[in-house]
Amino acid sequence: MSVTPIVELGRRAAAAAPAVAGASTARKNEALGIAADLLEARASEVLAANSDDVAAAGERGESATVIDRLELTTAKIAAMAAGLRQVAGLADPVGEVLGGWVRPNGLRITQVRVPLGVVGIIYENRPNVTSDAFGLCLKSGNVAFLRGSSGAIRSNLSIAAVLRDALVKAELPADALVMVDDTSRDAAVEFMQLRGVIDCLIPRGGPSLIASIQLHATVPYIIDGDGNCHLYVDAAADLDMAEEILVNGKTQRPSVCNALESLVVHAAVADAFLPRVDTTLADVELVGDERAVAGIVRCEPAEEGDFSREFLDLKMSIRVVDSIDEAISHVNASGSGHSEAIVTGDLRAADRFIAEVDAAAVLVNASTRFVDGEEFGFGAEIGISTQKLHARGPMGLRELTTAKYVVRGDGHTRG
Amino acid sequence: MSVTPIVELGRRAAAAAPAVAGASTARKNEALGIAADLLEARASEVLAANSDDVAAAGERGESATVIDRLELTTAKIAAMAAGLRQVAGLADPVGEVLGGWVRPNGLRITQVRVPLGVVGIIYENRPNVTSDAFGLCLKSGNVAFLRGSSGAIRSNLSIAAVLRDALVKAELPADALVMVDDTSRDAAVEFMQLRGVIDCLIPRGGPSLIASIQLHATVPYIIDGDGNCHLYVDAAADLDMAEEILVNGKTQRPSVCNALESLVVHAAVADAFLPRVDTTLADVELVGDERAVAGIVRCEPAEEGDFSREFLDLKMSIRVVDSIDEAISHVNASGSGHSEAIVTGDLRAADRFIAEVDAAAVLVNASTRFVDGEEFGFGAEIGISTQKLHARGPMGLRELTTAKYVVRGDGHTRG
Repeated sequence: MSVTPIVELGRRAAAAAPAVAGASTARKNEALGIAADLLEARASEVLAANSDDVAAAGERGESATVIDRLELTTAKIAAMAAGLRQVAGLADPVGEVLGGWVRPNGLRITQVRVPLGVVGIIYENRPNVTSDAFGLCLKSGNVAFLRGSSGAIRSNLSIAAVLRDALVKAELPADALVMVDDTSRDAAVEFMQLRGVIDCLIPRGGPSLIASIQLHATVPYIIDGDGNCHLYVDAAADLDMAEEILVNGKTQRPSVCNALESLVVHAAVADAFLPRVDTTLADVELVGDERAVAGIVRCEPAEEGDFSREFLDLKMSIRVVDSIDEAISHVNASGSGHSEAIVTGDLRAADRFIAEVDAAAVLVNASTRFVDGEEFGFGAEIGISTQKLHARGPMGLRELTTAKYVVRGDGHTRG
Repeated sequence: MSVTPIVELGRRAAAAAPAVAGASTARKNEALGIAADLLEARASEVLAANSDDVAAAGERGESATVIDRLELTTAKIAAMAAGLRQVAGLADPVGEVLGGWVRPNGLRITQVRVPLGVVGIIYENRPNVTSDAFGLCLKSGNVAFLRGSSGAIRSNLSIAAVLRDALVKAELPADALVMVDDTSRDAAVEFMQLRGVIDCLIPRGGPSLIASIQLHATVPYIIDGDGNCHLYVDAAADLDMAEEILVNGKTQRPSVCNALESLVVHAAVADAFLPRVDTTLADVELVGDERAVAGIVRCEPAEEGDFSREFLDLKMSIRVVDSIDEAISHVNASGSGHSEAIVTGDLRAADRFIAEVDAAAVLVNASTRFVDGEEFGFGAEIGISTQKLHARGPMGLRELTTAKYVVRGDGHTRG
């Protein structure tokens, strides 16, 4: 299969950016609606391409998990279409006035929300990301410049073809979605270095992708990183509440980044709480420090690195601390800055945890599982940022924009 | 001179960050006041160190410009002190609530402005940046982790020693300011790669520093880049106003990033306006396209690349266009996304220029020289961002912060 040079694709994406940035909300919503309809109408075409990817994955001996993520069904395509329709219903962030003031010399300044331009997204084996990322980029006035994995390339190109047809039907440039067809590693590096084309790169994938971005990228990027999330059960915790939040955070969906990985228990309630962990997390492998091992029958001694490990599985580390100071230090030292929760009835403890824990989200008496764009009410999310620049925490449409200062004078010159 | 390993300095900076982030506004202001007083009281100590740097620069045969930037005087030290006192008078951005809402399930979410943590700044031969950057970082609750140039190292260490003493007097950690004493290139690269220590890196320097950051940095950074700023004189421009704004933008301070580099004139007013340029910019070297050369006696043909060059000098490129479309395309193609101005009396032209020009700041009937933190009313600035992530345009105290989500529940678990 012959592929298109990355530089040529970048040129197309950049060329389409002004028209996409300037498109009205009505036109963008129309395109999203047409895209949703077309995805459903041409589902068989997408499913055929996908079944080739799935067959190839089977031949390569990929795991059931990988194949499950890769495989599309009519229901999954309907969910993709529903996602596009949902994004059409969200408020358009473009044009929002973030602030404005008049200077003593009469100069009028406003700061207005505008699209980033070209948003690059690198992702792994989930073809539905093609449609989800496209929807969020379009609604926020950005060109979606997408680079999926080689294992899903037939599915991705098929979905992209449908979405590009929808764009043209809505009288928007087809290049509002540009899909990279060269899935080689060299092309990925070239993609990460398209300065002047990609205004913001968002990787959606595991640690090796993040490491590659940090090593190679010369375009601005936002890290959607690990979530080594802690639950701290304070001395003043309601232990029934703590147990419910623990079970929810750890077991409701252990493979996601806002799931709990580590439990921190104040020594004053360790004797009362740890035996409950033993039974309530019956399906979870437990590793811990000396006091956790002493207090929980099934708990094994933690190995080097276990306290800073994101298990993404039914496994949890447990530590007993003597004070909230020790709890905060431990969370800050071993956490990944994603989501950290405390259960307490003590106002001072809650305030200190909120102020002193350094993370995108800090929760009091609530499950870390709430930290995502849907649960925050953003309608949809492009990821969860664990860095501090630009966006921190769940990223919705607003996080896909930047700002422009508009300065109005009447012949003003500087003295 | 033995130097401290970068990693060790990074450890110190990171260790100081929680105390600096948690410091009250009153304490930070007190520290800024003490620092200002101490800088003036110990001016002779700083001047002695500086004179060694200046002597060494003379021996190396540095230019008068370089030495002028490097050399401190009692007046310059007083200005540094005044800058610190001014920052003490600015509003503290930390703790500002950016938004808040209640979810249907009763979960209460607020987004609060918090310090970045450790702000790394790499800068060139101006020792006053040591004090200016420290002031802005401290006020915004951040540790200032500074790396100046080798040519100013004695001055920088001397200023840093004074400022660190002031911190201790205000009962803040001395390591709220950490100055790198290893000015080797290897150390600079190591600095740019201190992931987990530097939360945001801001380079203040020329194109070679920016290129080095883009090549080596693995920490998040904000580019304070070139300003290839245009003035577009529209068909509906008041030509007297255009002339004043042109002269101000080009000649008031040609060496700065918000100075004009390029003039774009609509063909309809070229005959009337170009001859005025000839006389009004009498001290400026002019290069242009064919029509500019034809219309201006002193104008020489532009060479390859002149239209995208930041001269930072009394030199200007001139282009004649047939439409506002052509003007906008030219500005977007050759500009650096800093500040772009239009002079027009036509509302539609103004609106189109504002909407379609892709820059940090777009100005209507005002000089590009207004685009800086002071003129915008931020009180002080750490730089002007030409990238789109996190901050775009003049960066004040707010741009040195990030946000944290605080989620409060009452035993909430996700269904």
